[in-house]
Amino acid sequence: MSAGGLGEVETQDALLFTGQEPLVLESGARLDEVEVAWECYGELNAERSNAVFVCHALTGDAHAAGHHGDPARRGWWDRLIGPGRPIDTDRFFVVSPNLLGGCQGTTGPSSVNPQTGQRYGLEFPMFSVRDLNTVHRRLLDHLGIGRLHAAIGGSLGGMQALQWAIDDPMAMELCVAICASARLSPMNIAFSTVAREAIMRDPDFQGGRYHDSERHPNIGLAVARMMAHITYLSEESFMEKFGHERRVDGAEPGLGPDYEVEHYLHHQGASFLSRFDALSYLYLTRTMDYFAPFEEEGIDAKLAGNPTKVLAISFSSDWRFDAGHSGFIVDRLKAAGWDAEQVDVESPWGHDSFLLDVPEYHELVAETLVSGELPA
Amino acid sequence: MSAGGLGEVETQDALLFTGQEPLVLESGARLDEVEVAWECYGELNAERSNAVFVCHALTGDAHAAGHHGDPARRGWWDRLIGPGRPIDTDRFFVVSPNLLGGCQGTTGPSSVNPQTGQRYGLEFPMFSVRDLNTVHRRLLDHLGIGRLHAAIGGSLGGMQALQWAIDDPMAMELCVAICASARLSPMNIAFSTVAREAIMRDPDFQGGRYHDSERHPNIGLAVARMMAHITYLSEESFMEKFGHERRVDGAEPGLGPDYEVEHYLHHQGASFLSRFDALSYLYLTRTMDYFAPFEEEGIDAKLAGNPTKVLAISFSSDWRFDAGHSGFIVDRLKAAGWDAEQVDVESPWGHDSFLLDVPEYHELVAETLVSGELPA
Repeated sequence: MSAGGLGEVETQDALLFTGQEPLVLESGARLDEVEVAWECYGELNAERSNAVFVCHALTGDAHAAGHHGDPARRGWWDRLIGPGRPIDTDRFFVVSPNLLGGCQGTTGPSSVNPQTGQRYGLEFPMFSVRDLNTVHRRLLDHLGIGRLHAAIGGSLGGMQALQWAIDDPMAMELCVAICASARLSPMNIAFSTVAREAIMRDPDFQGGRYHDSERHPNIGLAVARMMAHITYLSEESFMEKFGHERRVDGAEPGLGPDYEVEHYLHHQGASFLSRFDALSYLYLTRTMDYFAPFEEEGIDAKLAGNPTKVLAISFSSDWRFDAGHSGFIVDRLKAAGWDAEQVDVESPWGHDSFLLDVPEYHELVAETLVSGELPA
Repeated sequence: MSAGGLGEVETQDALLFTGQEPLVLESGARLDEVEVAWECYGELNAERSNAVFVCHALTGDAHAAGHHGDPARRGWWDRLIGPGRPIDTDRFFVVSPNLLGGCQGTTGPSSVNPQTGQRYGLEFPMFSVRDLNTVHRRLLDHLGIGRLHAAIGGSLGGMQALQWAIDDPMAMELCVAICASARLSPMNIAFSTVAREAIMRDPDFQGGRYHDSERHPNIGLAVARMMAHITYLSEESFMEKFGHERRVDGAEPGLGPDYEVEHYLHHQGASFLSRFDALSYLYLTRTMDYFAPFEEEGIDAKLAGNPTKVLAISFSSDWRFDAGHSGFIVDRLKAAGWDAEQVDVESPWGHDSFLLDVPEYHELVAETLVSGELPA
């Protein structure tokens, strides 16, 4: 990571939907109060034309860059966002919100339902990727931002940016969808259903009412996270990071963690519990499962004449959403006359590459954002 | 499947190790009583030279072929074993035992420890793939069989056959190791550790003493099985089998199973509970994790001059143990002067291909067993 990232930043929040003006979801369901948390970095220019909107992945949050007081602990995309970094805060005004259904400042299933005074739990309505954008469009209105220079995100974040570009031809000049998918494969959905099963069948899940007790579905959520984490890496990155190293060389063989890779995964599972909520995990994975923008009725007519430029970036070792997912998006958009390009970047780190130092990827993002043009 | 498989068959069992003559494991631990369950098909010839030994995979059992009274429900390798089938019972005497640590007739961690009158539980000693063979060598002695024509098995079964061939140059003429591995990758081990975590942290696991109660770690075991099952298939087979079909078209979106692939996995998890034991799952996955025959001290000297012919079969879409695993085995053996060949068979069905109708694979097994020669 280059020196000189952003300094201390703060998360802001606002109540953007209220009983007078509720959030109406695609399904028709209503949420009477929706609070949104976000961070922003850099300065909005006088023309209000330099806004870059960051969409986070499944378990991300608004804290994408800088730090909250401890310079050693920085936001999840600090490698990409900052002065002179690929999403250059000397040029761009970067907005990074937590999404609807999340658990880090924006209203989600563990929030209190103002109508009952109780947390929603499983009564929280199902929502779509489109609904995420309805909320974030409101945030932009609140910030006085019209058209975006770009929306950019990885994984679910890329799916969100893609949906936004499709739904609103004037929303952004550029859409950068990184290791995204326009339709989870049945195998992707299979991993998600096992994760949800682990959570919902944990006896401490208590039908989603665990917040009222001291028992949370920690075992199910940790197992779900451990499994998902495997799918974010690659055979190659596992081998490079861990090989067959054991924590204690010459230890007695046993059933508990022994190899370093096991200790690592156990740590991933345990540390996830302090930062994520089981209900949000259920809802957000399900929102991804149902995402299918190109299968909607009337999609061909809807795609026509959209000037948004779309860059889809995939990574060679990503087997969760492999290059075929990005290729499908670009093929479909090009067939509808869009200006769209895929770049498959060589990287050994699997799906997680979008969070890591992959120079070709960083350069690609930087050049595309600055030029406003897709790579040739 | 061709018509005319084996008819009704029976599982047999015998106490092969006793307090007078206990099983001494590689670790030095002793088991005072070891019972072994097996089935056999076909006739042993007068020279006792036509025995083919079948080694089952992680969750297999002795019931490989024929049926136990219901002709519609047949053994797990009935496609391969029977008159005129690739492992031809008109030619070969086929022996198929359940392995040590299992839960289907052979002594394992849920068996009663004769010294305490209680089930072993987590006091069952750790055991190695070599130990599986020690038990099975005793079974062959019991059956009056010396040298095998062949040992054949898929996945863990292939690993077992390979270890046997390495340890005893006179044990068999042919070793057929199908989608096997000489060393689980760190990613393989990662999946196993998550499965064990799901089981051992299930509150109903009760430190392995669940047999004394009415609560078994069914949630953990089902989650472990669902996850593992994903790794046995391939993106292509998931797409072909399930696509994005929903059980009820137009159903309200929700968090529970909706897509056919989800119902299928839930069924796999639930049905596994009636046939497999959580403790066996823990021990056998761990035995696989520690398997590393080529990393043992003195292995080079040990490999020298071994006349066993080894055929390693891999499947193009197997990502659990991909072609590289078989390739590594064959390269290592050839470097030591063995007669060894790898054939990578085109198949869309992933790791599970070894259980399925893949004609090229069936022909390869048939020709190799009949000729006693490796493919050119």
